[in-house]
Amino acid sequence: MTAVAISSPGGPRVLKAERRDVPQPGQNEVLVRVRAAGVNRPDVQQRKGAYPPPPGASDLPGLEVSGEVVAVGEGAVRWRPGDAVCALTNGGGYAEYVAVHESNALPIPHGFTFTEAAAIPETFFTVWHNVFQRGGLKAGEVLLLHGGSSGIGTTAIQLASALGATVIATAGSGEKCEACVKLGAARAINYKTEDFVTAVKEMTDGQGANVILDMVGGDYVARNYHVAAVEGRIVQIATQAGAVASADFSRLMMKRLTHTGSTLRPRTIEFKGQIAAALEAQVWPLLASRRVAPVMDMIFPLADAWRAHERMEEGDHIGKIVLDVG
Amino acid sequence: MTAVAISSPGGPRVLKAERRDVPQPGQNEVLVRVRAAGVNRPDVQQRKGAYPPPPGASDLPGLEVSGEVVAVGEGAVRWRPGDAVCALTNGGGYAEYVAVHESNALPIPHGFTFTEAAAIPETFFTVWHNVFQRGGLKAGEVLLLHGGSSGIGTTAIQLASALGATVIATAGSGEKCEACVKLGAARAINYKTEDFVTAVKEMTDGQGANVILDMVGGDYVARNYHVAAVEGRIVQIATQAGAVASADFSRLMMKRLTHTGSTLRPRTIEFKGQIAAALEAQVWPLLASRRVAPVMDMIFPLADAWRAHERMEEGDHIGKIVLDVG
Repeated sequence: MTAVAISSPGGPRVLKAERRDVPQPGQNEVLVRVRAAGVNRPDVQQRKGAYPPPPGASDLPGLEVSGEVVAVGEGAVRWRPGDAVCALTNGGGYAEYVAVHESNALPIPHGFTFTEAAAIPETFFTVWHNVFQRGGLKAGEVLLLHGGSSGIGTTAIQLASALGATVIATAGSGEKCEACVKLGAARAINYKTEDFVTAVKEMTDGQGANVILDMVGGDYVARNYHVAAVEGRIVQIATQAGAVASADFSRLMMKRLTHTGSTLRPRTIEFKGQIAAALEAQVWPLLASRRVAPVMDMIFPLADAWRAHERMEEGDHIGKIVLDVG
Repeated sequence: MTAVAISSPGGPRVLKAERRDVPQPGQNEVLVRVRAAGVNRPDVQQRKGAYPPPPGASDLPGLEVSGEVVAVGEGAVRWRPGDAVCALTNGGGYAEYVAVHESNALPIPHGFTFTEAAAIPETFFTVWHNVFQRGGLKAGEVLLLHGGSSGIGTTAIQLASALGATVIATAGSGEKCEACVKLGAARAINYKTEDFVTAVKEMTDGQGANVILDMVGGDYVARNYHVAAVEGRIVQIATQAGAVASADFSRLMMKRLTHTGSTLRPRTIEFKGQIAAALEAQVWPLLASRRVAPVMDMIFPLADAWRAHERMEEGDHIGKIVLDVG
């Protein structure tokens, strides 16, 4: 099969198409003929050599795909050849075939294309776990969302507002802010021209945000503690502006904040399967009715994966970048 | 009545006995003839002017007492005159009488003296909420406890080990470390001669601590992130070495830590009443059987409250300092 591999750690051009053996589905796995693969920031980190794949995982990048089941491994009972699925992978998505655990695959929501479906798993699993399970966001609460126009951001805006929360998003341009508001944000803050602490405090009568989803880190940590409401929950899913930062922990204590965070990839198959089940029950109906849908930025052919990485690193994208595997 | 007041913000000697009117019990309150009053670090902060009492609270220091109910306010049904109770107060404990909400009082555990009983509420409410409710410590887990010889620390060691957790305590002298081990700590670390991160990692086969109760802050924050286990919970109840500190938040994220904290005094009467109910059900039997008991450091007469504060600030105490009100 054709796959795109990381020929050596480095810039986007190290992504090169090569021939690989078609993987075999293992115990409880299914083999998927990949039709589209989502591009995510951890892929960029992996390409740079900063995020090595865990032991036993494929060395190929690609954490989510859509496609058709073409074979089932021993013990796998949920899918049959011909089923159209989207799935989290343990790497290996930038390829014509990938083996995935049957519990980490979901049916393609009714009416969605393969490229749309490939844009769903990574952000929906991440948002569901971090915003709702870990952050405990409830209807009527205020979610402050940094990186509102990212794949994660555009998913979080739609899901949180569909489930009854008020969403305030930050983004880096007027165009990105407009996109956030169109998706359901009550307000978007251009962080280049406006201080989000002041803006959120004003908008919430001084109460602050109940949940904050942050992928920025750096000086945002101290500012998040400042803008969080009493008993607020701050969930860290990346630290793009720096991991080591200073904050006032008496503020965390006096306001009884909870600062937590997680990364999806190292979690167990079982854990991801539990999220998949929750998503199918609670979010798949919202997708089927198009109340929520992935925001599609651009689609590149698999062989041009390097261009997809360039686009992500330039930071002009709004929503998801996807590879068309054909 | 006689009370000890803060004549002006400053050192221990600003604590001066004066005459005050006996307070009246309000709605759902009882009036307690105080027999003993516990001394706590927030009293020291309040004396220095760094922790002003909340609106509506007594200006007198003192957050816990024991004594006899002598009058009941409108709507109060739980206690009758003559009942021996210990209670959280909303300030005003350094006095011969104080009014407390009936739900924030508990019966004096069988066989306990008034001075012992006055040493119970503040640390037991604080430990119960922060270690078990907020930190979610479970049997079989490892609790790392900073300030093991303090009032909070000596209570946490006993409660956590009685409930099946393994306790590792830090303290600042060999004598204090011995006291921690006598109370049930599996190991005590003299932080002046040993690095607690290395010691805890060694002791837990590199796994780290599941829950950390920290009253230190400062550089302990980063070190707590280092020594916490995956999915560890760090509960901040003071920041004695500094509130503003630097930490590696990618560590918090990669290990899926939860950093939270709280202070007891500003919580509602209802919230404190819920803790009281949980303590009565789950901890009072342990007190009645003396499986746990407050560690008594020294007892001073009410009029010598300044000496009690001096002792606390010198930092040589092990366990609780109490005022005998007579």
